[in-house]
Amino acid sequence: MSKEVPKRADNYSEWYNNLVVKADLAENSAVRGCMVIKPYGYAIWEKMQAILDKMFKDTGHVNAYFPLFIPKSFFTKEASHVEGFAKECAIVTHYRLKTDTDGKIIVDADAKLEEELIIRPTSETIIWNTYRGWIQSYRDLPLLINQWANVVRWEMRTRLFLRTAEFLWQEGHTAHASAEEAIEETKKMLDVYATFAENILAIPVLKGVKTPNERFAGALETYCIEALMQDGKALQAGTSHFLGQNFAKAFDVKFTGKDGKQDFVWATSWGVSTRLMGALIMAHSDDEGLVLPPKLAPIQVVIVPIFKNEEQLASITSVVDKIVAELKEKNISVKYDDRDSHKPGWKFAEYELKGVPVRIAIGPRDVENGTIEVARRDTKEKSVMQIMDISLKIEHLLDQIQTNIYSKALNYRETHTFNADTYDEFKKLIEEGGFVHAHWDGTSETEIKIKEETKATIRCISLNNKQEKGKCIYTGNDSSQRVVFAKAY
Amino acid sequence: MSKEVPKRADNYSEWYNNLVVKADLAENSAVRGCMVIKPYGYAIWEKMQAILDKMFKDTGHVNAYFPLFIPKSFFTKEASHVEGFAKECAIVTHYRLKTDTDGKIIVDADAKLEEELIIRPTSETIIWNTYRGWIQSYRDLPLLINQWANVVRWEMRTRLFLRTAEFLWQEGHTAHASAEEAIEETKKMLDVYATFAENILAIPVLKGVKTPNERFAGALETYCIEALMQDGKALQAGTSHFLGQNFAKAFDVKFTGKDGKQDFVWATSWGVSTRLMGALIMAHSDDEGLVLPPKLAPIQVVIVPIFKNEEQLASITSVVDKIVAELKEKNISVKYDDRDSHKPGWKFAEYELKGVPVRIAIGPRDVENGTIEVARRDTKEKSVMQIMDISLKIEHLLDQIQTNIYSKALNYRETHTFNADTYDEFKKLIEEGGFVHAHWDGTSETEIKIKEETKATIRCISLNNKQEKGKCIYTGNDSSQRVVFAKAY
Repeated sequence: MSKEVPKRADNYSEWYNNLVVKADLAENSAVRGCMVIKPYGYAIWEKMQAILDKMFKDTGHVNAYFPLFIPKSFFTKEASHVEGFAKECAIVTHYRLKTDTDGKIIVDADAKLEEELIIRPTSETIIWNTYRGWIQSYRDLPLLINQWANVVRWEMRTRLFLRTAEFLWQEGHTAHASAEEAIEETKKMLDVYATFAENILAIPVLKGVKTPNERFAGALETYCIEALMQDGKALQAGTSHFLGQNFAKAFDVKFTGKDGKQDFVWATSWGVSTRLMGALIMAHSDDEGLVLPPKLAPIQVVIVPIFKNEEQLASITSVVDKIVAELKEKNISVKYDDRDSHKPGWKFAEYELKGVPVRIAIGPRDVENGTIEVARRDTKEKSVMQIMDISLKIEHLLDQIQTNIYSKALNYRETHTFNADTYDEFKKLIEEGGFVHAHWDGTSETEIKIKEETKATIRCISLNNKQEKGKCIYTGNDSSQRVVFAKAY
Repeated sequence: MSKEVPKRADNYSEWYNNLVVKADLAENSAVRGCMVIKPYGYAIWEKMQAILDKMFKDTGHVNAYFPLFIPKSFFTKEASHVEGFAKECAIVTHYRLKTDTDGKIIVDADAKLEEELIIRPTSETIIWNTYRGWIQSYRDLPLLINQWANVVRWEMRTRLFLRTAEFLWQEGHTAHASAEEAIEETKKMLDVYATFAENILAIPVLKGVKTPNERFAGALETYCIEALMQDGKALQAGTSHFLGQNFAKAFDVKFTGKDGKQDFVWATSWGVSTRLMGALIMAHSDDEGLVLPPKLAPIQVVIVPIFKNEEQLASITSVVDKIVAELKEKNISVKYDDRDSHKPGWKFAEYELKGVPVRIAIGPRDVENGTIEVARRDTKEKSVMQIMDISLKIEHLLDQIQTNIYSKALNYRETHTFNADTYDEFKKLIEEGGFVHAHWDGTSETEIKIKEETKATIRCISLNNKQEKGKCIYTGNDSSQRVVFAKAY
């Protein structure tokens, strides 16, 4: 990236916006707040989808598809849900356009819907209205269903991947015969998300529960995974909700138990979205561009020939063809960029920008010596390798890179996690960035005041949190545990 | 299926509607014209998606994602396109709900959009508006992009899978430097669709071009594949459009050629949708239920134990476990239904309804003899097989079933394809059902009159159509070739 480009250390926000566009991941569209996900960005999202989908199926879930539209009245059935979701939304009111007398295309006022339709911001209501017909007895339970879909929330301030009016996600909606089983499911899916974040995205996450104030609208408990970005701000990367019987009651979904008694069904919902793309970019990238974990990189290895004439290229290519074949056999995705239109230096910069984990350069001398030059994107180290057993070596290197990217992010988080025991200390640490563990008196009032004064929110109360007596940093009241504060996306 | 159920021969339409619901494929939702695709139906759709997606990628295409919303003004830019699409559509006019003084949730009149947004009925306009920024020179071409998405067309009369307000599809949108290359792409994708229909759906299709009257709104030429359903009606199963420079002109998308001259870009678009699910069901199923081609069956083999007590079940299960492991090794999807809650007869009927290609039954006697009973869904033939090498035998049987289902559909089409040389003959044949090849004078007037009088439309003019002199069945005017008529879905 050239020097006019914003640096990560100088302006993190501009650095991010610029990188998303420059690396061909996404761009703003002609429609306010909606993005176009470009092929390179979509290829990464597809990899995320494929891996998550397999994890969902391995845990017994199946996919289905429910309507994009939700009748307005459905939102009024679950009181807290409408407060959280139905306010800023896209509303369909008409179903026909017509040509007016001037030849202009206008909305046909005669084609007004009797009841307005909301573009789904999340699908609990339409799904639980459907489940009423699917569940009669305990034999119909559990129902373990996931949906891959687009949703719309009319956000006022949008940013590519992080907060857009339309975004892509998956939403799991499960139905159970008991609270215990539903809670178990909620935690199981949180674990799936945490495993995915750490093993695939290479991002360490905190697992915890939200405070009542930060809960999903309609949930009894919201579990979350929280990640730390390179500017010291937190990003909620996935949520899993225990919904109790709220939606079953709102949509009258009952089942007959083994004992013959009727009861309302217990629910969970859980989701991750294209926001993960934002997390991926912000957690690892640098001033040269993206740094992609090998498990998500659309191109894992790029090979750049260094040549002065056709003859040299031909001899290089004959070597490269074998390397490519060997790598493909190991399911390593490899691109050979033998274009004559761009110089090697340009190509090096281009694939650094795109975050390709491994770059191989090979010139005439290498052909003679049976060597290649291998460069890692994560550490920028170069080394000369013998071509013999190259696919084994590259496979091993990709594993190392995956691990190293994770370790680097973990190290960043560890060096940016603090304890604060006074409010002054707290404010200073929050200002500098990072996770701050501090005592809190457990009230929403205090939580809101701290947020107003410092912009820090309680990201979560860690699972299996250490219990220790202390005093709330804000009110000085008694507290039994520290909670995790941070500024957040 | 029990006897109150509509029979295919008596009422094809009711038979279809009933089957879609009974086999757990889809159901109508609370939103007019929108369906819920249930897990079993969605599992089939996912298989279609995976196979098509691979075919698209193997032909050089990549996926991307464009916004759900299209500004109303975009539709006015391509004149014929708006006529075809923007009339019956879902229109977003507001972006906020509020609680009124009575506590009711109403649309906030203050949150009216300056320009209405149309839910995409198809994405040429928003995509070509985006391509303007992506294409400068011939080096940026071709652009070979596909999108998997939901679209909405406000259909008045809807039927599950065949015609719904919201449906799922893929839409390819490619950009080229020359008309020739774009036409080649259009035909290539038609071939991909035809191959998919015949090899995977096991449905023979006619490849052809549409008459001007039946063209996609905005296309210069629409290619299509046409299939024949078991009631003698045709179903358009996929279309591929050569769009010329229409959308490039409407959205000002120019490129600089190798010669340094500027020209408008050439376009194609092509799509198939969840309508293919309708084709699949209607082409093969019978009064007992679905008949699924093995390549799309979510469960390819079901194993039903026949037992009187726990001891028998245990000895059967120990044999079945080995069979299951062997089948899974060959990537054959197998389900062992050892539920005690349902009798074998009930299970047999259930898996026939669900179209599972192969059913294996195994009882205590079989365990003694080292045999199993194998039943084919397509022919309903049963045979006793030795367990030895069972996975090879089943693999071979699945291939046979795939081929047989196709042959049966091909045979049906061949025995329901006719030539008509007079209008009386034509009317009689159309009434009976099938493809009718007849001479037509080439005018839209004649085409429309025939449609009004007989409900038959010209499905296509076959590719590489035989040229022969004749007289139009309706006007008696000269004609140089027969075209294919049928009543259609």
